[in-house]
Amino acid sequence: MSAVLTSWNDTPAKAAIVDFVERTTTPGSPDFVDPVDRLAVFDNDGTLWTEQPMYNQGFFAFDRVRELAPDHPEWAETQPFKAVLENDMQTLAASGMQGLAQIVMSTHAGMSAEQFVEIVRDWIAQAKHPVRKRSYPATAYAPMLELIAYLQANGYRTYIVSGGGVEFMRAFVPDAYGIPVDQIIGSTIKTKFEEVDGEPQLVRLPELDFFDDGDGKPVAIGKFIGQRPVICVGNSDGDLPMLQYTAAGDGPRLMLLLHHDDAAREAAYDRAASIGTLDKALDEARERDWIVISMKRDFGAVFVD
Amino acid sequence: MSAVLTSWNDTPAKAAIVDFVERTTTPGSPDFVDPVDRLAVFDNDGTLWTEQPMYNQGFFAFDRVRELAPDHPEWAETQPFKAVLENDMQTLAASGMQGLAQIVMSTHAGMSAEQFVEIVRDWIAQAKHPVRKRSYPATAYAPMLELIAYLQANGYRTYIVSGGGVEFMRAFVPDAYGIPVDQIIGSTIKTKFEEVDGEPQLVRLPELDFFDDGDGKPVAIGKFIGQRPVICVGNSDGDLPMLQYTAAGDGPRLMLLLHHDDAAREAAYDRAASIGTLDKALDEARERDWIVISMKRDFGAVFVD
Repeated sequence: MSAVLTSWNDTPAKAAIVDFVERTTTPGSPDFVDPVDRLAVFDNDGTLWTEQPMYNQGFFAFDRVRELAPDHPEWAETQPFKAVLENDMQTLAASGMQGLAQIVMSTHAGMSAEQFVEIVRDWIAQAKHPVRKRSYPATAYAPMLELIAYLQANGYRTYIVSGGGVEFMRAFVPDAYGIPVDQIIGSTIKTKFEEVDGEPQLVRLPELDFFDDGDGKPVAIGKFIGQRPVICVGNSDGDLPMLQYTAAGDGPRLMLLLHHDDAAREAAYDRAASIGTLDKALDEARERDWIVISMKRDFGAVFVD
Repeated sequence: MSAVLTSWNDTPAKAAIVDFVERTTTPGSPDFVDPVDRLAVFDNDGTLWTEQPMYNQGFFAFDRVRELAPDHPEWAETQPFKAVLENDMQTLAASGMQGLAQIVMSTHAGMSAEQFVEIVRDWIAQAKHPVRKRSYPATAYAPMLELIAYLQANGYRTYIVSGGGVEFMRAFVPDAYGIPVDQIIGSTIKTKFEEVDGEPQLVRLPELDFFDDGDGKPVAIGKFIGQRPVICVGNSDGDLPMLQYTAAGDGPRLMLLLHHDDAAREAAYDRAASIGTLDKALDEARERDWIVISMKRDFGAVFVD
C-alpha cells in the first residue's frame, strides 16, 4: 500500500502513516477501526495547497476587485480597495484580516450560489499564482493528495475543514483533490432563498454566517459530520482545536502537522508568520508526540505536476 | 427494479417513481443524470415517520422533563413544564412552538454532543409511541424506507433535511433508515468547544443555532451539500421552499408530496393541522403536477414491522 505514497521520502513520518493505516484497517488487528468510523479531516490552506505569500482565495478576491472596479469608482479612494487597485501590498497587509474580510464580502456576494461557483471556476481555469507561476490547483502538495487517495483506498472518508469559503472550494476541490462536493466544510456567508427573475435561487448576502477556524473547526465537525475524526491533518494554530478534539477520542488516533521549513522549494515560516502562524500547535505536537511533517525532509516532491 | 417497492400499491404514483428512476439512471436515456448529480432530499417528520399527535422529538423532550424534574422543583409551578408533568396536553398545545422550543432548550443542552446521542439512544431503545404503541423507529413508513433503499441502489445519495434536531436524528437514523450519519441535516443548537474534566468536548448550549424549516431548508442544502437536488420528498408547507428549489433545477426533477389521508391506518390531516400543516404546498403540487402520494391509495403497508 505504501507504494502509492510515491512523492513521500522514506522517512519515519511516512512509515508512521502507513503503519497507522495498516493497523486500523487490518481485520483482527487490536487497533482495527470499523469502516463507518474511518473519518479523516484535513485543513486546506497551508496543508493541502500553498498559503504564501497570501491565501489563494485572497488572490481571487483581489482579481475580483480589479474586475468589478469599473462599477465601483469609489474604490479608487477607499481602502483596502485602493491598495488592491494600486498593487500596494504593504497597505493591504496592514489592513489585516479585517481588510481581507471587507474585500471578500464586497466581491463574493450579490449573486446566486450557482453563479458564484461559475465565477470561481472561470477564474481557476485561467488564473496563475503570482509567485509559483502555475495554476492554483497546481499549488497543491503532491504528497498530501496522495495521502488523501491512500486513505480513501483504505475506506477512510476524507473531509476538508478549512477557514476558506466553502463555495470557493467547491468549485475546484472535487476535480483537484478527488474529494466530493459534500465533504467540504468551510466558512460560510449567509444566503437567502428567493425568486430572482422568476427562478428560486440561493442569493449570497454580504454577511458572515460562520468562520470555520480555531474552535470553530471542531464545532463545524460536530455540526456537519457528527462524528469525531480518527485522523486530523493541519499546519497552523488555527488547526489546534481540531487536532486536540481528534486526539481526545477513544482508540487509535493519528495527528499530523505539516511544518513549512523548506524555503528553497516553497517557504519557511512558523511562529512569526502573519498567515498560517504555527506556534502553540508546534509546541503541543512535540510534547504529545504528534507527527510533525517536515516539508524539507519528508516531501520528495512538493507540488503536483 | 420495481419489485423492491413491495409496500407500495401498484398505482400511478409508484409507476411514476419507477419511471423517473429508470429514465435518470439508464445510460443513453435523454434524461440520464450523472451519478455525482444524483441527489435526493427527504423531510423526516410526517414524511419518513409519523408526526401525530406530536413530533416524536416532542415526546422525547417530555420524557426528559419528567426525568429531570427532581432536579428542577421550580418546574412544578412553571409553564410549559408544569403542563408536561401534569400531562395537560391542552395547555401544552396552547404553548405552541415557543413552548416546545423552551422545553427542548432546557432538556437538550448542558451535556456533550456524544453524551446527548447516548441519552437519545437509550430512550429510543425502550420508549413506546403513546398512540401507535410501538417503538419510535417502528413509526417509520415502510414504503418510504423502501424508496430510500431503491434510490440508493440506483446511485442516488439520500439526505434527510428536517426541522428536527440533527443530533436527535443521528442517534437512530443510520440504523433505522440506512442513511449515513453525515447525510442528516437538521436544526442545530449552538455548541462550544471546551475542556470538561480535562477532555476536549463539544458542549451543547441552550441556544438555537439554525432552524431548518421553510426557507431554511434550501439554505441548509446550499450550506451542507452545495448541490441542487434532483428528487425532493416532503409532506407539509415547511417543505415547500425545498420542493420549489428542487423543481427549478435544469433537467429531470421529481417532486413527491405525501398526503396524510388515512385516518383508519394513521391520520388524516392537511390544511387545518397545527402540526404538519399542508395547505399551500398541496395547491402548488396540484397546479404544477408534482406527485401527490395518497397514503390511503398508494401505501400498501404503512408502518415498518
